[in-house]
Amino acid sequence: MHSFPKELLSGHANFLAGRYLREKERLRDLASAGQSPTTMIIACCDSRAAPEMIFDAGPGELFVLRNVANLVPTYQPDGGQHGTSAAIEFAVKALNIGNIVVMGHGRCGGIKAALDPHFKSLDDGDFIGKWMSMLGELPSQLGQNSLLTSTERQTAMERISIRNSIRNLRTFPYVAELEAEGTLQVHGAWFDISTAELWIMDHDGDFIRPEL
Amino acid sequence: MHSFPKELLSGHANFLAGRYLREKERLRDLASAGQSPTTMIIACCDSRAAPEMIFDAGPGELFVLRNVANLVPTYQPDGGQHGTSAAIEFAVKALNIGNIVVMGHGRCGGIKAALDPHFKSLDDGDFIGKWMSMLGELPSQLGQNSLLTSTERQTAMERISIRNSIRNLRTFPYVAELEAEGTLQVHGAWFDISTAELWIMDHDGDFIRPEL
Amino acid sequence: MHSFPKELLSGHANFLAGRYLREKERLRDLASAGQSPTTMIIACCDSRAAPEMIFDAGPGELFVLRNVANLVPTYQPDGGQHGTSAAIEFAVKALNIGNIVVMGHGRCGGIKAALDPHFKSLDDGDFIGKWMSMLGELPSQLGQNSLLTSTERQTAMERISIRNSIRNLRTFPYVAELEAEGTLQVHGAWFDISTAELWIMDHDGDFIRPEL
Amino acid sequence: MHSFPKELLSGHANFLAGRYLREKERLRDLASAGQSPTTMIIACCDSRAAPEMIFDAGPGELFVLRNVANLVPTYQPDGGQHGTSAAIEFAVKALNIGNIVVMGHGRCGGIKAALDPHFKSLDDGDFIGKWMSMLGELPSQLGQNSLLTSTERQTAMERISIRNSIRNLRTFPYVAELEAEGTLQVHGAWFDISTAELWIMDHDGDFIRPEL
Repeated sequence: MHSFPKELLSGHANFLAGRYLREKERLRDLASAGQSPTTMIIACCDSRAAPEMIFDAGPGELFVLRNVANLVPTYQPDGGQHGTSAAIEFAVKALNIGNIVVMGHGRCGGIKAALDPHFKSLDDGDFIGKWMSMLGELPSQLGQNSLLTSTERQTAMERISIRNSIRNLRTFPYVAELEAEGTLQVHGAWFDISTAELWIMDHDGDFIRPEL
Repeated sequence: MHSFPKELLSGHANFLAGRYLREKERLRDLASAGQSPTTMIIACCDSRAAPEMIFDAGPGELFVLRNVANLVPTYQPDGGQHGTSAAIEFAVKALNIGNIVVMGHGRCGGIKAALDPHFKSLDDGDFIGKWMSMLGELPSQLGQNSLLTSTERQTAMERISIRNSIRNLRTFPYVAELEAEGTLQVHGAWFDISTAELWIMDHDGDFIRPEL
Repeated sequence: MHSFPKELLSGHANFLAGRYLREKERLRDLASAGQSPTTMIIACCDSRAAPEMIFDAGPGELFVLRNVANLVPTYQPDGGQHGTSAAIEFAVKALNIGNIVVMGHGRCGGIKAALDPHFKSLDDGDFIGKWMSMLGELPSQLGQNSLLTSTERQTAMERISIRNSIRNLRTFPYVAELEAEGTLQVHGAWFDISTAELWIMDHDGDFIRPEL
Repeated sequence: MHSFPKELLSGHANFLAGRYLREKERLRDLASAGQSPTTMIIACCDSRAAPEMIFDAGPGELFVLRNVANLVPTYQPDGGQHGTSAAIEFAVKALNIGNIVVMGHGRCGGIKAALDPHFKSLDDGDFIGKWMSMLGELPSQLGQNSLLTSTERQTAMERISIRNSIRNLRTFPYVAELEAEGTLQVHGAWFDISTAELWIMDHDGDFIRPEL
C-alpha cells in the first residue's frame, strides 16, 4: 500500500482522460526525438504562477527552472553545486535555447521575506535568508524608501529582482556571447496573480503591458 | 518595441480567453488570501514533464521546485546559497506543506549526463557535472552492470536517484521530525514521458503503477 | 465414478455453452484442415500469464510452449530429450511459423528462485535449480548490484533472461537462417501481471510499451 | 520501431478493453498475493487446444505446462535440464497443487510423428524424434496393429500416451507419496478438437464422457 496524495492521482487520471488523449502523438514523438524547447523560463515555485498555465504551453515547449523568487546568481565557476547555473548551462549548451525569460510575479513570498528586516537574523539553518541574500543590498536600499506602500515596495522589489537576475544571467560568458551574436535573447516578465495580467520588460527595463 | 517571444504572447492570450475566464474567482481569491498548497513537487526542468500537466493541477495547488534532474542535496547549513534547500524550507516552514513528492521522469538529460563517463573531465565552468555529482558514486556503481541495456540503466538510475533524493530530504531535521509526527509525508514518483504513465514509489522503494 | 475436478467440468460446460457455440465452425475447420498458426509463443507456466488471455487469442492462432520461466536453451543436438527445442523445431519446420515471441512476466517464481542464492545447494532431485541454471552466471552478476530493490532486480532479471533466451534461440541454425531471410521474426515481450500491461522488446533489447 | 505482430497487439487491446476491465481486481490481487492455483495442466503446444479455452479458466486458476504432445518423462535426477520435471516440481513442491491433469487431444502432430516410421531416421538435430522417443516402443507396438485405421491408431496412441505420462508422473517420489496421502490427485483427459468434446480418464484408464 501507498499513501500517495489522492488528489494527485485523480488529477493524473483527468490528464490521461483529457489532454493526454489529445496530445498522445506529440508526447510519444517528444520522447523518441528528445525535447527541443526554444524557450527557457526561470520562474518561482509559487503555486499560483506556473509558466505552463500562464503561457498555455504544451509538452515540449518550455524548459522550466523554478526556484524561490526566480533568482539567478552570477556566474561562479567555483566548483560548488549550483542548481540554477546547471539548468542555464543545460538550456544554453545542450538544448540551444533561443530565449530565456526571467518571470517574477506579484505577492512573492521570497521577495516578501527579503524585504522583511527580521529575516536577516535567522540562524545558519536559514536557507531562505541565505538564498534571498543573492539580492545583496537591493532590498534594504529599497526598504528605506518610505514613500512606497508595502505593496508598492513589494512589486517594485519583484521587478528590481528580475532586472538583477537578468544582469547576473549576462555574467555567464556563453549567455553574453550568444546574445551578442543574436542567437539568444534574454527577457523579463512579471505576472500579476490577482488579475492574470502579464507585464513584459522593455529595453529600458520597464515593465509594460504587451499587445496580445 | 520589444522582442518578447510571439508564441508566449499568443499562449497567454489563450490562457486569458480560456482557463482564466473559468478560474477568475479562484485566482483572485488566491491572490488576496495567499497560497496554501498542500503539496510540494520537486521536479525536473524538462519541457516534457511539467507537474501541472501531469497532475492536471490548477492555480494554488502545487508548490513546484524544478531543477536539473530533480535532485535534493543533503542538509548543509554552511551558509551557502542553496536554492533547493531554500524551497524545501519555505514549503515546510512557511507553507506547512503536508506532502513532498520527488518526481523523476524517463529520458532525463541530467541523469544521462551523470551516467556518461566523459562528463567528469569537464572544467570548473561545468555546472551540470558538478550538480550531478550530488549522486556521488551511484552512477559509476550502476554503470558497471553490463547486463542492463543503456535504456534500462538510465531508468534504473532515475529511480535510484529519486530514492537518494528522498534519503537526502530526510536529513533536513524538520522534514524528519514532521514525518515522524505524521504531519508531513514524503513520496517518490516517476513519469514516463513517452506513455504518460505515472509510477509511484511504495514503502520498499519500488515504483508501481497506482490504481487511478 | 471419477474424481475429475468439478471446477474443470463446470468450466468446460461454460465453454461449450459460450465460446464454442460461437466458434463451432472454426474449430471444425481447424480440425479438418490442420492448424496453421503464424505465431509461436514461448511463455511461462504461471497461472496468471496465459498467452491466450493476454492476446485474446482464439483457437488456431497461437502455438504455445510453456515451461518454467519461459527459458530457451541453446541448440544442443546431443541426442537428449529436449522438450523446448522439440517445440521450436516443430513450430519452425513443421508449421512454418512466421513469428516466435519469448514472453516473460512479472513476479516469476522461476526467476525468483534463480536469484535466490540458497537455491544452488539443493540436491540432484532439484529440477528447478538445474533448469534455472540455464541462465548461467547472469543471476549472480546482477544479484550483486545493491542499488536495485529486490523487485527491481527481479524485473531486470526477467528481462535479461528474455534477451538471453532470444540469443539462445538464434543458435538454432534454421532460426538464424530464416530470420536472415526475413521469413521468421523473433520477438521479446514482458507482461505485468499486476497491471496487465504488455511491454515489447525493441531492437536495442529494451522493453517498451507498444501503441495499441 | 518494432515489428511486433499486429494481431497480437490488437488482441491485447481487446483483452484490455474486455476481460481485463472485468477482472482487474482479481489480477491485481493475484499479483500481490501470489498465485495459488489448485490445478496443474500438462497440455500440448497445439494452437487448437489451449487449456484456458477448454476449461473457460480465468487468471490464477491453472498452472499450465505445454510441450509437444503433453509428454511427461520418468523421474531422472541425473543433473540434466528437465523442463517438464522442473514444472512438476514447482507445481507440487512450491505451489502445493492438488490436481495434475495430463490432457491430450485429437490430431496431435507430435503423436502423428511418433507413429510415422520415417521419423526415426532423422539426424541428431531432430529434436521432435528424440522427444517423442519418450514413448519408447509404444508407437511401434501399436503401429503393427493393422486392424485400426490410421485415425483410430492416432486416437489410440494419444490415449496410450496419456496413460504412459501418468505412469511416468508417478515415478516422481513426491507425486506418488502425496497421491497415496490423498492430497494430490492425478488425472487424464483427452479433447476432441473437432467436436470440442472432453473425455476424462476413469480408474481403469478408459476415456469416458463426463456428465456436465
